[in-house]
Amino acid sequence: MAGALPPLPTALADEPWRLSAAEAARRLREGSLSAEALLRGCLARIADREPFLRAWNHVDEAGALRAAREADKAMLGGAPRGVLHGLPLGVKDMIDAAGLPTTHNSPIYQGHIAAQDAACVAIARGEGAVVLGKTDTLEFAAAGRRPLTRNPHNGAHSPGGSSSGSAAAVADGMVPLAFGTQTGGSTIRPASFCGAYAMKPSHGLVCRDGAKTYSHSLDTIGWYGRGVADLALVAEALRLPAPPVPAAPPGRPLRIALCRTPHWAKADPATQAALETAAARLRAAGAVVEEAELPAPFSGLDEAQQIIMHSEGRGAFLPEYLHHHALLHQDFRDRVENARNLSTAALREAHDLAAGCRRIFDTLAGAYDAVLAPAAPGEAPADLRDPGNPVFNAMWTLLHVPCIALPCTRGPQGLPVGVQLIGPRYSDLALLEVAARAALAVDAEKP
Amino acid sequence: MAGALPPLPTALADEPWRLSAAEAARRLREGSLSAEALLRGCLARIADREPFLRAWNHVDEAGALRAAREADKAMLGGAPRGVLHGLPLGVKDMIDAAGLPTTHNSPIYQGHIAAQDAACVAIARGEGAVVLGKTDTLEFAAAGRRPLTRNPHNGAHSPGGSSSGSAAAVADGMVPLAFGTQTGGSTIRPASFCGAYAMKPSHGLVCRDGAKTYSHSLDTIGWYGRGVADLALVAEALRLPAPPVPAAPPGRPLRIALCRTPHWAKADPATQAALETAAARLRAAGAVVEEAELPAPFSGLDEAQQIIMHSEGRGAFLPEYLHHHALLHQDFRDRVENARNLSTAALREAHDLAAGCRRIFDTLAGAYDAVLAPAAPGEAPADLRDPGNPVFNAMWTLLHVPCIALPCTRGPQGLPVGVQLIGPRYSDLALLEVAARAALAVDAEKP
Repeated sequence: MAGALPPLPTALADEPWRLSAAEAARRLREGSLSAEALLRGCLARIADREPFLRAWNHVDEAGALRAAREADKAMLGGAPRGVLHGLPLGVKDMIDAAGLPTTHNSPIYQGHIAAQDAACVAIARGEGAVVLGKTDTLEFAAAGRRPLTRNPHNGAHSPGGSSSGSAAAVADGMVPLAFGTQTGGSTIRPASFCGAYAMKPSHGLVCRDGAKTYSHSLDTIGWYGRGVADLALVAEALRLPAPPVPAAPPGRPLRIALCRTPHWAKADPATQAALETAAARLRAAGAVVEEAELPAPFSGLDEAQQIIMHSEGRGAFLPEYLHHHALLHQDFRDRVENARNLSTAALREAHDLAAGCRRIFDTLAGAYDAVLAPAAPGEAPADLRDPGNPVFNAMWTLLHVPCIALPCTRGPQGLPVGVQLIGPRYSDLALLEVAARAALAVDAEKP
Repeated sequence: MAGALPPLPTALADEPWRLSAAEAARRLREGSLSAEALLRGCLARIADREPFLRAWNHVDEAGALRAAREADKAMLGGAPRGVLHGLPLGVKDMIDAAGLPTTHNSPIYQGHIAAQDAACVAIARGEGAVVLGKTDTLEFAAAGRRPLTRNPHNGAHSPGGSSSGSAAAVADGMVPLAFGTQTGGSTIRPASFCGAYAMKPSHGLVCRDGAKTYSHSLDTIGWYGRGVADLALVAEALRLPAPPVPAAPPGRPLRIALCRTPHWAKADPATQAALETAAARLRAAGAVVEEAELPAPFSGLDEAQQIIMHSEGRGAFLPEYLHHHALLHQDFRDRVENARNLSTAALREAHDLAAGCRRIFDTLAGAYDAVLAPAAPGEAPADLRDPGNPVFNAMWTLLHVPCIALPCTRGPQGLPVGVQLIGPRYSDLALLEVAARAALAVDAEKP
């Protein structure tokens, strides 16, 4: 049971939709829970809450029931289908799931049905996941049209974007796992706003085929769960590779670098408090937490990320620009037409700055078990149209490093505020182990 | 008329299939050639030669005729459809074209029909191209099953791979333009073997959606033509951005860096002769040609490219590994299972080496109008199963720089041997201008 879920009568506390993915997976394996019962729990939760939350563009009740029953049948033969056996999964609506609509929340793609699974969806299904439906997103996970999704903790507030529906649905108990993507801060920031756990892996480890490209140097498939163990299940399904250096052995105190980033002045008091709170809780749990400052060049990464994102967006939306000009939002026409007048010299410099900082960060972060940093600028904005500022995410996305969002505190408006742990490139599996230990201290609401 | 084409009776010299894309485009615009006549010429050439050449996995005669007639109808209204108006186009069979099979030359995908155009195909169609069919490829453009395609100049020899069908079809006059891809040397090397022109643009400028990923840091959409002007048409359609530095003004002699690369010892006498010949012809045409040596770290790029390619291939073929294990060639199971036992530490070092060399190369190449280097190790191998060694291509692919293949000489077996021109990242449009001037000297067979 995740603390981030809105409070419920105790009698309902054991309803299957409240189970974390890891706990549900355990019960599915031991036979005390069926995939169909778990799915029906999720469907009931969706029926209750979707009129308020608006997290889904499409719920495939029939297809999911079929898949859940097949999973249960496989278990009768004694064989779970894989590490995600029987677990319902939400898929951000710019990632293809065969037979379901992929709308990208764009008027161009209304009614468009995906013929094939995206690579990550095919892998999840191959490992036994039950695809439940498609979650709302900022148009093309980039700009333009806003999703309809609300923040599960306060309907007047944004869930963050662009992976709005995935973050909100998982935080609200509608589905235990969901895929999102991150190009700027689209996975980690909504996790902070909604009180979910999330992982953005190192760039390049998860194949993006079947997820529409915005910026190929940045776009990364990410995922949501209600605990670090949930995130680890998906990492296992996707076969993330062995890290360059193993995680800290269980006995040794964690060594954490506290990194305010060059953008600390843009952190609201709520985020500043969350970071201090996380550090204090980690110290109280025996961790060594040291301030670590990033060298001067890192202040250029935010702008470099934007230059790369907008430059690469020129080609990404050219097909829609040529074939559906009238239906393509001005935000995307601007990208194709290079409205920002970005030069290829600037693009080159942005790539080179990032490459230099990657080396530096790997060394810096390699001296610790993880880097602790803000996950978002504050509580979720009180404006459904505002996906939030990615300033605490864009640099990490550009550095290609793994990031894990952990819920931490509540802000003055009672909304969740998270933090993130970051590791060197390809340390994903080690970072998951560190995050599992850290979450015990950082997430006070987690029982 | 391209010199690389097998000799034909002079009476046939003006048949439309012999026209370069640029010349055909000119005639289509002035109304002296119809798209249907051009297409019928290509279809006749295919009917004649395909039983020998085996370049195509699928020819969409009916769909192409429909598209050609629509193009002709649009011209009656006085409006060409775009820069590729009426030009037949081949598409490598791991790039989707809506309604046509995409087999990837894999047993898994036999009978699989693509529902949507890949981004590059959608853009080409939006600019008026007539999609003629799908060209044979090495399985998944990577390894495994070999294509059936022969070298147009000698059927006992390989056309090179993996873009085998595209290179051979364009060189043989079956189609004026075709898309390929390059991860190691899959676009430029087959061009050299078949006597075609080809361009591999800077990495990241052409959206790869709808082309199956092998290695996301390396995979690049490329294209074939029968002259530099043909390549420039496709670059225009894809809206490659303005280069960081403009090309040499027409009056000024070209400054060319002659680069034997760290792999010169692997160049056959035929390739060594081609490079010397190209340099001599350029000098004779007034260019300044200087030897340029690459610094020591560049000798590590070939291995770095392999580390990145195989590491990224782990995730790329995981969907097929889980769902079609028995039909997946051992080459791809090896990638998923990391048979080479590559570490993520090695992956990080490979990326960092590449990033450092990119900066150095941009500076080095920026002092010249282009870098002249071998395009392949020699003539096409006398073994249809041998796609050729990518050692003269892999480093440039990894450096993300634009490469243009130009036919140059014939080797001792009478087969074409090309060279390539290379520029700094994002200098694609400038490099095309330089290549147009250089080709006048380098390609002695071009009238």
